[in-house]
Amino acid sequence: MRVTIQAIALALSMLIVLPCQAQTAEQIFPKGELSTVKNHAGNIWLKELVVGNATFDPSVAVATYDAGARLDWHIHPGGQVLLITEGVGYYQERGKAARIVHKGDVIQCPPGIEHWHAASRTSGFAYIAVTPTQKGKTIWLEPVSDKDYNSMK
Amino acid sequence: MRVTIQAIALALSMLIVLPCQAQTAEQIFPKGELSTVKNHAGNIWLKELVVGNATFDPSVAVATYDAGARLDWHIHPGGQVLLITEGVGYYQERGKAARIVHKGDVIQCPPGIEHWHAASRTSGFAYIAVTPTQKGKTIWLEPVSDKDYNSMK
Repeated sequence: MRVTIQAIALALSMLIVLPCQAQTAEQIFPKGELSTVKNHAGNIWLKELVVGNATFDPSVAVATYDAGARLDWHIHPGGQVLLITEGVGYYQERGKAARIVHKGDVIQCPPGIEHWHAASRTSGFAYIAVTPTQKGKTIWLEPVSDKDYNSMK
Repeated sequence: MRVTIQAIALALSMLIVLPCQAQTAEQIFPKGELSTVKNHAGNIWLKELVVGNATFDPSVAVATYDAGARLDWHIHPGGQVLLITEGVGYYQERGKAARIVHKGDVIQCPPGIEHWHAASRTSGFAYIAVTPTQKGKTIWLEPVSDKDYNSMK
């Protein structure tokens, strides 16, 4: 009987672990490649889904950040929408307070506005970025200071 | 001892069911409202996330279909990208064979092309639609025939 109980417990525990792991590990779109460009600190993975051009604009890409990863300050001449799909991040426009963004939030970065976005200190985050391309490429500015990044309470 | 085994089995089965249900039921963005417009058959829910305009284009919306739900034939003057986030659907451009699309697929509908998309017969589907607006509104055509819809093998 002891063996039977152990067998039932083992079988049920595998049923618990396996399907749940499969679901939590599941991503809808590929994580892509680890970014090697010099416009961010920390690990950021990028996967381009659509490349915008004169026939079809915008570009669409998935970005996945480790906790603490942050982009430099930058400008999108055509603006950008971020659809937050995982985790917790920060978003700040120049002259405004930084704010926390969460999975399910939709962030609209207006055209021409200096801003940055980042994963939070303790949680990574991921988003789908929708970026019009026909008004100009992203303009990269200075890195985000520790003071700005840590201004989140 | 029988009671003990039953208690263990019940406790473990609750551990299996509860966390997995929480994960599968979770949606990143709201499902939105059931569509009442006359350009589709079957149940389709819509949630507009971003409204495109001259300052920021495109529109971004989530659509969720019951199994069997299908849009009429239509044209996007600026094209459209569908990011399939759930389930299984069909996609057909005029003059081409219909094809199956799955969660994780990225479908690019070219500007000006007559096409339709639908949930499969046995599974609903959902997508994020990215639709440029400044080249004109969607042009709606005739309903998809049963012959076309059922042409999927």
